Amino acid sequence: MPYEIMSGKPREECGVFGIFSPDRNDAGSLIYLGLHSLQHRGQESAGIAVSQDKGINLYKRMGLVDNVFNKSIIETLSGWAGIGHVRYSTTGSSLAANSQPILINSIKGQVALAHNGNLVNGYELRIALEKKGSVFHSTLDTEVIAHLIARSQYNDIPSALLDSLKTIEGAYSLVVLTRDKLIGVRDPRGFRPLVMGKLGEGIVLASETCALNIIGAEYVRDIEPGEMVVIDENGVQSYSFNPEVEPRFCIFEYIYFARPDSSFNGNNVHLIRKDMGRQLAREAGDLLKKIDVVVPVPDSGISSAQGFAEESGLPFQYGLIKNRYVGRTFINPTQEMRNLKVRMKLNPIKNIIRGKNIALIDDSIVRGTTSRQIVNMLKEAGARDVHLFVSSPPVTHSCYYGLDTSNRQELIASRLNVKDIAREIGADSLTYLSIEGLLSTVERKEKGCCVACFSGDYPTRTGNGKLALEKNVPEIKSGQ
Amino acid sequence: MPYEIMSGKPREECGVFGIFSPDRNDAGSLIYLGLHSLQHRGQESAGIAVSQDKGINLYKRMGLVDNVFNKSIIETLSGWAGIGHVRYSTTGSSLAANSQPILINSIKGQVALAHNGNLVNGYELRIALEKKGSVFHSTLDTEVIAHLIARSQYNDIPSALLDSLKTIEGAYSLVVLTRDKLIGVRDPRGFRPLVMGKLGEGIVLASETCALNIIGAEYVRDIEPGEMVVIDENGVQSYSFNPEVEPRFCIFEYIYFARPDSSFNGNNVHLIRKDMGRQLAREAGDLLKKIDVVVPVPDSGISSAQGFAEESGLPFQYGLIKNRYVGRTFINPTQEMRNLKVRMKLNPIKNIIRGKNIALIDDSIVRGTTSRQIVNMLKEAGARDVHLFVSSPPVTHSCYYGLDTSNRQELIASRLNVKDIAREIGADSLTYLSIEGLLSTVERKEKGCCVACFSGDYPTRTGNGKLALEKNVPEIKSGQ
Amino acid sequence: MPYEIMSGKPREECGVFGIFSPDRNDAGSLIYLGLHSLQHRGQESAGIAVSQDKGINLYKRMGLVDNVFNKSIIETLSGWAGIGHVRYSTTGSSLAANSQPILINSIKGQVALAHNGNLVNGYELRIALEKKGSVFHSTLDTEVIAHLIARSQYNDIPSALLDSLKTIEGAYSLVVLTRDKLIGVRDPRGFRPLVMGKLGEGIVLASETCALNIIGAEYVRDIEPGEMVVIDENGVQSYSFNPEVEPRFCIFEYIYFARPDSSFNGNNVHLIRKDMGRQLAREAGDLLKKIDVVVPVPDSGISSAQGFAEESGLPFQYGLIKNRYVGRTFINPTQEMRNLKVRMKLNPIKNIIRGKNIALIDDSIVRGTTSRQIVNMLKEAGARDVHLFVSSPPVTHSCYYGLDTSNRQELIASRLNVKDIAREIGADSLTYLSIEGLLSTVERKEKGCCVACFSGDYPTRTGNGKLALEKNVPEIKSGQ
Amino acid sequence: MPYEIMSGKPREECGVFGIFSPDRNDAGSLIYLGLHSLQHRGQESAGIAVSQDKGINLYKRMGLVDNVFNKSIIETLSGWAGIGHVRYSTTGSSLAANSQPILINSIKGQVALAHNGNLVNGYELRIALEKKGSVFHSTLDTEVIAHLIARSQYNDIPSALLDSLKTIEGAYSLVVLTRDKLIGVRDPRGFRPLVMGKLGEGIVLASETCALNIIGAEYVRDIEPGEMVVIDENGVQSYSFNPEVEPRFCIFEYIYFARPDSSFNGNNVHLIRKDMGRQLAREAGDLLKKIDVVVPVPDSGISSAQGFAEESGLPFQYGLIKNRYVGRTFINPTQEMRNLKVRMKLNPIKNIIRGKNIALIDDSIVRGTTSRQIVNMLKEAGARDVHLFVSSPPVTHSCYYGLDTSNRQELIASRLNVKDIAREIGADSLTYLSIEGLLSTVERKEKGCCVACFSGDYPTRTGNGKLALEKNVPEIKSGQ
Repeated sequence: MPYEIMSGKPREECGVFGIFSPDRNDAGSLIYLGLHSLQHRGQESAGIAVSQDKGINLYKRMGLVDNVFNKSIIETLSGWAGIGHVRYSTTGSSLAANSQPILINSIKGQVALAHNGNLVNGYELRIALEKKGSVFHSTLDTEVIAHLIARSQYNDIPSALLDSLKTIEGAYSLVVLTRDKLIGVRDPRGFRPLVMGKLGEGIVLASETCALNIIGAEYVRDIEPGEMVVIDENGVQSYSFNPEVEPRFCIFEYIYFARPDSSFNGNNVHLIRKDMGRQLAREAGDLLKKIDVVVPVPDSGISSAQGFAEESGLPFQYGLIKNRYVGRTFINPTQEMRNLKVRMKLNPIKNIIRGKNIALIDDSIVRGTTSRQIVNMLKEAGARDVHLFVSSPPVTHSCYYGLDTSNRQELIASRLNVKDIAREIGADSLTYLSIEGLLSTVERKEKGCCVACFSGDYPTRTGNGKLALEKNVPEIKSGQ
Repeated sequence: MPYEIMSGKPREECGVFGIFSPDRNDAGSLIYLGLHSLQHRGQESAGIAVSQDKGINLYKRMGLVDNVFNKSIIETLSGWAGIGHVRYSTTGSSLAANSQPILINSIKGQVALAHNGNLVNGYELRIALEKKGSVFHSTLDTEVIAHLIARSQYNDIPSALLDSLKTIEGAYSLVVLTRDKLIGVRDPRGFRPLVMGKLGEGIVLASETCALNIIGAEYVRDIEPGEMVVIDENGVQSYSFNPEVEPRFCIFEYIYFARPDSSFNGNNVHLIRKDMGRQLAREAGDLLKKIDVVVPVPDSGISSAQGFAEESGLPFQYGLIKNRYVGRTFINPTQEMRNLKVRMKLNPIKNIIRGKNIALIDDSIVRGTTSRQIVNMLKEAGARDVHLFVSSPPVTHSCYYGLDTSNRQELIASRLNVKDIAREIGADSLTYLSIEGLLSTVERKEKGCCVACFSGDYPTRTGNGKLALEKNVPEIKSGQ
Repeated sequence: MPYEIMSGKPREECGVFGIFSPDRNDAGSLIYLGLHSLQHRGQESAGIAVSQDKGINLYKRMGLVDNVFNKSIIETLSGWAGIGHVRYSTTGSSLAANSQPILINSIKGQVALAHNGNLVNGYELRIALEKKGSVFHSTLDTEVIAHLIARSQYNDIPSALLDSLKTIEGAYSLVVLTRDKLIGVRDPRGFRPLVMGKLGEGIVLASETCALNIIGAEYVRDIEPGEMVVIDENGVQSYSFNPEVEPRFCIFEYIYFARPDSSFNGNNVHLIRKDMGRQLAREAGDLLKKIDVVVPVPDSGISSAQGFAEESGLPFQYGLIKNRYVGRTFINPTQEMRNLKVRMKLNPIKNIIRGKNIALIDDSIVRGTTSRQIVNMLKEAGARDVHLFVSSPPVTHSCYYGLDTSNRQELIASRLNVKDIAREIGADSLTYLSIEGLLSTVERKEKGCCVACFSGDYPTRTGNGKLALEKNVPEIKSGQ
Repeated sequence: MPYEIMSGKPREECGVFGIFSPDRNDAGSLIYLGLHSLQHRGQESAGIAVSQDKGINLYKRMGLVDNVFNKSIIETLSGWAGIGHVRYSTTGSSLAANSQPILINSIKGQVALAHNGNLVNGYELRIALEKKGSVFHSTLDTEVIAHLIARSQYNDIPSALLDSLKTIEGAYSLVVLTRDKLIGVRDPRGFRPLVMGKLGEGIVLASETCALNIIGAEYVRDIEPGEMVVIDENGVQSYSFNPEVEPRFCIFEYIYFARPDSSFNGNNVHLIRKDMGRQLAREAGDLLKKIDVVVPVPDSGISSAQGFAEESGLPFQYGLIKNRYVGRTFINPTQEMRNLKVRMKLNPIKNIIRGKNIALIDDSIVRGTTSRQIVNMLKEAGARDVHLFVSSPPVTHSCYYGLDTSNRQELIASRLNVKDIAREIGADSLTYLSIEGLLSTVERKEKGCCVACFSGDYPTRTGNGKLALEKNVPEIKSGQ
């Protein structure tokens, strides 16, 4: 069972990767390594499509990158260009038909697409396309985009894609592979990240810089919001669309999603998280006086806890230790095995916890269940008071841009005020970072961020998108 | 490795099965059993789609029916109606994307389709559809039909399907599932079989009657060439289309494909095969005088050998024994292990073979490789003369109707005359059944048969169909 | 699910294979092929041990030969000498710890052993050894023999083995591998078969001749009852022990176990079975007049049915067709699916059965369940009368020599007389072959046969052997 | 590939777990959870044996706990008492036959044993036993102990075990299961840990306290060196043997093996590691002045780095980020992918590293390969100087007590002096903790520690044990 499910964190839907490197033939290997680095962005399915002499070859399956691919499969995925995808379903059921990349044949040739994000008008477009006679094999927005490309008046795929982008709204970072081109696109608000790197003569696209690092590629720049890059034998061509729209980078990438070793626009995620922790300490005020020791929830709270401790001058202690082996939770816990799910992952060090007033630092609270178990576990280990500090504001609204924060009803902060959340969780106090405080850590560096899940202030219309689709259209499932 | 590959027999592409039975909820189990009975028609992939409250649920995968499905998967496939498919690829590569049924969403709702046969204008239609903006996920003719349904002016699926049938040419026996209907179609020439049965209040469609038998369903009738049946809560509606075209049932169903316990239009396949053997004996003339003993190639030659022996009065002997366990042929044979592939399957009984003049009976010869190994093995076992008798005519032409007889160049009888084939195979003589003789065994019973693979006299234009598709359009492959 | 379980036949416990061939290095491949040929003798587990430079290397696992081994495993099993084993458990549970060969280290060096048969004093010896401080890892008689070798006063393994044979009683055909020797042993009564062949300079041992045929080895002779052969670089040495005991070859090898293409002492099994059918017809008397058609239960009844038809002059018809694909029986049959287990395997041809008085021929009846389902199925298919003819006598006693005829209580013939069996099975009459008739088909050829399961006349004391072991000693199970 | 192999750390051979709890029936579940917590002690194989009504039931297999067991297997392992084991092979090859627990039948009944440690006279005892006629199925010391029990003059297993302990020398923490007893033993020097806990009325034994925590058991005490505890319905009986020998607890448990959240004799491992880091800083002297920032190698160096930073007052920074997903290293690295193995696991944050003089903290160096790659990666990320600090002394000698420090030739510190190691690793300086410094962190708390791998001062004769066995006796391998 993936860490994210157990941790009650918001779930990122996807990671994408692309490479164009005509002077070498190991696209499959490089994409495998890139996807391995992006595994935290999606653990449900993984897929690689590469351009080969015979055409585009696709292999995808449910499971972790490491389980989906092996040596002999990677050997069949040699090629000079390709794309890859890891996915985490936002729907309850895990559907093999919804794994990516998707590969289609159209009159314009073969196209493979992989997508990170969520369209707010995906359902409307789907209905409109079906009315014109299109048939769909999945519930993916990616398939909607593929149909728009196929039906565009433009015959070459880059133009047809650019044409299609006029129609779609919402969050998307796309990598697209044709027989001889790699294309990368980021929506006008730039909700989801997409960075570009250089590997020898080749060009690499990836959701995060950590995927450049693993293959030894050099970071070049982030793809801009509203930018499409077309990479082929003639080099990189950049096209801008909807330049008037203001950027709204998903601030949760900084808070939780991205790997701490990744950077966006040169801003290292771990260091931003430390700043969030520092700001949280500044906002904590007199509460700090009650604290003996700062304890992070590993791994997600470590960066901000370090900042918190440094700013507050309070001692930092690893009071909770994480088991590096993931266990399956098929055991029915008996009474003695309280908090078993959390216990399989975390264990307190009593020598550190016992009799102490603890500042427990985590990055975010979604449903509150895990936090309650951790607080409970600390109390059982002898903690005196547990003051919970969260390095992001209360999550009160659902995300429409590709992040699974659960239904709004499940968000504890949409139901309860801070005091009541603290009571439900069993914490002696609960302090969230303010929206302003949060933005202050990033603002200098990012031109604009989306904080809709904290404020409800959505930068686009929200559509009835995925919700409508999942509700009205019966599920398309297929064997893996 | 499936038996067919080892035996050098023509390969049938598909078997289909459908059930509509609103008074019960075990569609998945029944289809599983049906597909198990039809396994000989396709061993590459298997799939089941059932109509459930939430919509149509599909599970398909590469492998034998027995490996693809297990108890827990079948339990997820409960429902009152559904279709199933087993497939054998006609292309070299085994493609997960080409497994069936396919399931699509269109403005007319969900539709699942499973197809046995081959369209001769599939490639043309695909190109025309792509020009109108359709995108394809596979190289299946089935997907072409799905697009035609989606684009038809008719809003209900039965009408849209009937409308689509005007456009497609070639061989097809189709089962189609909507949320509330099961539809069966057979092309105007009726190349491929499709029979109807009754199970309590429910209706069953299947490629062969053996699939009715296993679930205890009662045979009702064969679907007629050029007939579409629509089965729903109101019962069975029959529609006729293209009634002026003459039937051309694939005679290879009688010769090799169909299970001996199946019947078409009441004609039992095993008994027809016995008649072929009888006719072969009648055509053998004086050659019979040279024979000591009649030995069948098991299992394919057993029925005709029995007829041959009965007609000729010669003794019938099981001189070749088949290993009922299939083995993998990854062993590199050394010199002593001559004919290893055949030997893993067949073993001669020396006490029967030694010193005898043998009439070796098989149903057909395609490439001749297996026959040569068998003759060789009999000679090594001490046979004096081996006279090979084949209960069908020389296969000289490729099939365009859904049967994989290999490329024409690989057909031994398109390269060599009978004498030379005998020499290449190492047989002391070789006798084929005549086309007239063959037809005489069936003609009384079937209104018309396709014998194009023997005569080159194709009942439709042949198109450039699959060939064009496989050559021009790069492969769409996806992980299983 | 293996064929045997479904068929209700007695189950053979084991097949063994050995090779010594210092001029080649592909022992693993050859043993794989041999075991593939012997698969019918045991489907539960398979194992191969080969002598390599570093020592003896063993690989064994639960499953069919084809599933246990693959190319890369076989490549690790190269070597100049080795043994192999296929096993079918006689106990209810399938135990990984009980798979063979077993490989042990003793002061005399490494020894691998594989065993077909059953010791009647195995339990006594085990207790005696445990009293001396031996520890056991399995419930195998093979392990008892290994301990006897280790504790023998003789230092070389052949002498120690010969020494051990004085102590053990019952049925055993053994192949034993040391670092530089292959040894074969057959118990003094020769209950279980063991044949010797020649492959170039090498020597092959196998349970049946079909395993010689597949690798192109030439049959030399059967190992004699009470003979031990030691094969090493100096050639084959033969040792005789207990020569005064009369041979008692298990007649069920001829009736059912052995493959029809195998021969013992030059007697082909299929032809002996035909003779059994002939004799059965002779014993049938006036009953023959009531018969229209002779129908075998495939595959086990085919040989005797052919003899029966030839002797009686009655027409032979394949009225029951066997599905060559094995299906899993996890489906819960509903009312319409009567006889589902048998139906997944067999299907009647109504055109042959309808209105006919049928002589249904099978080789044996153990529990009667399958026979009842088959008779029932024939009646449903329209048979008028079904007269069941069985080419062996009633099985009334359990076997103590390595054959699983179930507990005596489960043997239908130990509970009921022939008339009552017929009634329970639903047959219109039931005719068994007489013991005398059976022996007459074999006697000329084999010096002496064991017919204890028909007569209760056991050629040895029966001991409390396996029974005791399974009852008193808790199961040793281990993960596969 | 397990973390340990990639990290070049010494490898612990085993973790053990046992439970006796007659008032409940979920021994399998509890042992599964315990083994999950002990996974870091062995990743090669896992096994569970439980006492059930029918006897002792064992399931074991190669692989991680999470892969070996699933819900349905655990359900077959219900019971009131049981033992479990995780194993890491010290030999090159991974042998299924060497997985534990082992289960044997002897005249004293069934016994299952699981063992952590290594006997120095295992080979001698084996030879002596073989001379008396014992046969061995594995190369495990555990099997030697089983034979000693079986051959002891005492009839009850606890007495026979105590009797056997007189004979064996070396390191062993044993859990033993009989039909109605759980026994725990720790060798007289107490090389390997074994703790006791209480779960309701039940008693739990485990290698580490983290395995008590996960099931909610309460820590009672450590089993004493030279103590045997027998747990049955009458409670816990303690027996002392060889009390005169001085304790020698393996100090590597504190340095690297044990989980940081575990405690021995109440001493928390993480806090001891912090103390090691503090002491290391104290020993660093003027070198500290050259340092800008303290960076741990995660996860192994984190605890000591924190102590180092606190003591030195230097800033602590997460300059290396660990990928929480394990990847397979089947990719052949090209030139750009330098240090790929380390890079799949660790990634530097350039913003932290660039231009800095770094104190890189790790817990130990064995072969030096990984350290070289990490230093190299930091330099490529822009580090100015990299000063490597190691919180343990140079490993110069092999371990004979159950820890795989590789052959002595592979130990970099047995070949080179500190300066040369620094050069080979590419570090600008290298500082090891002194033996005295190390002992000072532990001494107050543990009565005596084994530091033989640093000093060569072995507390027992070393024997020719395993080495001899692996060299002289050919490998016993069997399929998993």
